[in-house]
Amino acid sequence: MAHHRKKRHTRNLLLWAVTLAIGLLLWFVPPPEGLSLAAWRLFAIFFTTIFAIVTGLVPILTASVLALSVAVLSKVLTTEQAYSGFSQPFILLIVAAFLVSQAVVKSGLGKRIAMHIIARFGRSTLGLAYSLMATDLLIAPAFPSNTARSGVLFPIVNALAHDSGSKVADGTRKKLGAYLMTNMMVSLSISSALWFTAMAANPLGAQIAAKFGVQIGFGSWLLAAAPAALVAFLLAPWVLMKIYPPEVKRTPEAPQKAKEALEKMGPVHRNEWITGGVFIGMVLLWALSGVLDIDKTAVAFGGLGILMVAGIFTLSDMRLQGEALSTLIWFSVLYTLSAYLDAFGFMGYVGTHIAHAVEGLAWPAVYLSLVLTYVFIHYLFVSQTAQMLALYGIFLEVGVNAGVPPTLMALMLLFATNFNAIITPQGSSANVIFVASEYMTSKELYRNGLLMTLFNTLVFVGLGSIWILTIF
Amino acid sequence: MAHHRKKRHTRNLLLWAVTLAIGLLLWFVPPPEGLSLAAWRLFAIFFTTIFAIVTGLVPILTASVLALSVAVLSKVLTTEQAYSGFSQPFILLIVAAFLVSQAVVKSGLGKRIAMHIIARFGRSTLGLAYSLMATDLLIAPAFPSNTARSGVLFPIVNALAHDSGSKVADGTRKKLGAYLMTNMMVSLSISSALWFTAMAANPLGAQIAAKFGVQIGFGSWLLAAAPAALVAFLLAPWVLMKIYPPEVKRTPEAPQKAKEALEKMGPVHRNEWITGGVFIGMVLLWALSGVLDIDKTAVAFGGLGILMVAGIFTLSDMRLQGEALSTLIWFSVLYTLSAYLDAFGFMGYVGTHIAHAVEGLAWPAVYLSLVLTYVFIHYLFVSQTAQMLALYGIFLEVGVNAGVPPTLMALMLLFATNFNAIITPQGSSANVIFVASEYMTSKELYRNGLLMTLFNTLVFVGLGSIWILTIF
Repeated sequence: MAHHRKKRHTRNLLLWAVTLAIGLLLWFVPPPEGLSLAAWRLFAIFFTTIFAIVTGLVPILTASVLALSVAVLSKVLTTEQAYSGFSQPFILLIVAAFLVSQAVVKSGLGKRIAMHIIARFGRSTLGLAYSLMATDLLIAPAFPSNTARSGVLFPIVNALAHDSGSKVADGTRKKLGAYLMTNMMVSLSISSALWFTAMAANPLGAQIAAKFGVQIGFGSWLLAAAPAALVAFLLAPWVLMKIYPPEVKRTPEAPQKAKEALEKMGPVHRNEWITGGVFIGMVLLWALSGVLDIDKTAVAFGGLGILMVAGIFTLSDMRLQGEALSTLIWFSVLYTLSAYLDAFGFMGYVGTHIAHAVEGLAWPAVYLSLVLTYVFIHYLFVSQTAQMLALYGIFLEVGVNAGVPPTLMALMLLFATNFNAIITPQGSSANVIFVASEYMTSKELYRNGLLMTLFNTLVFVGLGSIWILTIF
Repeated sequence: MAHHRKKRHTRNLLLWAVTLAIGLLLWFVPPPEGLSLAAWRLFAIFFTTIFAIVTGLVPILTASVLALSVAVLSKVLTTEQAYSGFSQPFILLIVAAFLVSQAVVKSGLGKRIAMHIIARFGRSTLGLAYSLMATDLLIAPAFPSNTARSGVLFPIVNALAHDSGSKVADGTRKKLGAYLMTNMMVSLSISSALWFTAMAANPLGAQIAAKFGVQIGFGSWLLAAAPAALVAFLLAPWVLMKIYPPEVKRTPEAPQKAKEALEKMGPVHRNEWITGGVFIGMVLLWALSGVLDIDKTAVAFGGLGILMVAGIFTLSDMRLQGEALSTLIWFSVLYTLSAYLDAFGFMGYVGTHIAHAVEGLAWPAVYLSLVLTYVFIHYLFVSQTAQMLALYGIFLEVGVNAGVPPTLMALMLLFATNFNAIITPQGSSANVIFVASEYMTSKELYRNGLLMTLFNTLVFVGLGSIWILTIF
């Protein structure tokens, strides 16, 4: 035991040495021509931070807090820049939605919904996974914000895990909670790729594509995405089950037990009515937020306020929500680092270099290189929209100039903006609320994120490309 | 019991009706001439919020969350304006300092420092109060940020309360913790008034005063403030003991027990050395932050990061820090509301009207009216600096034009900027870390804040005015 601990201690020291060496090396190497010193050093900080997280050296919160401190004290970022992430509405939306989800569990409403789902689809974990994914896929076109959609789905998945006896606190997270949470993240990446209106930046991308003569609307998007998205939808829970198996797979008695539990619960309780009313109100306003110009974050805070007034979410509950603060801190920091990496010109620099690298290749090779690069460069981005704004135009232009059919290039990069979102825990704000649940470790998130991104890429690029070339 | 509960329920409903009526009335009354609709409605929101908090209708967090939602959904504030408070460095400094303070307690260092203080001054609660105040007064000139100074003092007060058996969790908060915390807040308001360099905005105020021909430096400030500040310092713990008595006042055996506890603790433990090193490093950098242009918030986050790497502050500890999130939310919201009340011209409008109201009075009457108004208008401000920027110049000008001796007017308003800081829990960022401890209820904070502000005003205006007129 002591020997084992010592070995781990030595490995840890070694990893610290390697991480610090990488960080210092990047820091002191002069920036490549065309990059400012600030951009280069910010990259050094960002890369070292992600490296420390991926290798499991420190948790994501610790890495972020240190990165923030280094970025400010070294004056790579001004204070105004460095703390700007904390006031991003979409980040605060995650925090508020996370707090509301606690009330959904606490009121008993979460359990009731969970029991209804189990009573119908609960014979197997796979059955639960599919029923949750189907819900996501069906409500997605009404949710232009996948962050808000994740805020709707999370409380249900969370309650389902909880009430199936899979919790974080007692070490049973891998029974089925971790699998269902990860599967839901994958689902969100697919549903966002299926519908024109399922992710905030999709219509924006279509606008950019129009400049290249490619017209994309709700219908043509759906037509182009449907085969790949549906295949991914059908296979994903099954693939994930192979690479990240839940400990419990078959629960033939669960539906009967759920029915009994529902009977025992009796009629809907006051707190459930209120929570249900607030939740449905929030969901409606979120769904309408695009049309009516309503701020989603304010809706979430308003819902939270009502639940507090009703005594359903109390100050004692609030005291235990350190995880929400943790999420706010690390996500704000990583988002800020990535946003300024872009603002300082680093992303454009990389994009231009990639463009030059593929010059002269045959168009299918150019196409594949660009799509794959676009998928994996998402390691650098902490937001889907940010990557689209930074790189979509450049990549599309390079592809079209190299002879790739414009429609194919435009659509596949748009799909990739969504299906690469799970490559890192911070890759999409839709992931973050699931990450905050702590059902998955950082290492698991990065591993499964990579593998399921490869899966998505295979399905979309393999099947989707042929389909798009056939029909357009 | 049921009768009692019903009575409380009725009173609560009545209070809701009154609060909503006030809010709606203010909302729909047309704004006074010279005020924009946005300024007026923001005032309606702010006033109703503070009313709901002061009357105990809802906790400060609930009120703030609802206020934020209403302000955004009614489009009185844009989203960018509404969430801007969350990225204010001085608010994030409070959050980070609060987390570090948890590590100081957990490492055992807090207990050790507390035991040393008790061993020396622990015969009575008053003795502890004076020893803490003396520390504050002595370190104050080296801390241009009273927020940072509160971050230094809080962990010590917190440990002292904890280790004297006065905790929030077990209902013993009023044994002596609540008293010591409140006393420390009062102390910060006095120490900030004593030294030119004990509050960030003091030198700024001196600069404004220079435009009116009043020269104020480190020495003249100290000379003018010393008698009143020292009298306030000597009397405050005693006055507070009368109006907010701790349950435990005399503890003659405490010093002996503390000495025994210190012996039992043995030599300083690894975690204490690290925490102590980090803490001293932070304190030094905070004290030097003005000279060396170091961001205080980044220092705090850096210290937190090191404590996390050392395993002293862990992710499990973090999970319980919901109170820090709660503080971040309510303080950000109230700060933002007040800041935009100023930006929208409300504060200037009020200031101008007060100026007109005192026209034609004899100068002592003008002087008293202006100082008292300046003290109590702090109910509207969520930051000392904000009030100084908004009103100091106007009030000073009106006073000087009405014949008040410029030096007297300039100095007393500067002192008031500090000694009125405890009038509300949000009145100074230096209060907030103590409020976050939850040792005091909202009602207690507002009540004692008002009473101790009256005490401060009496001492400073009564004694200070005569002294300033005598020596200058």
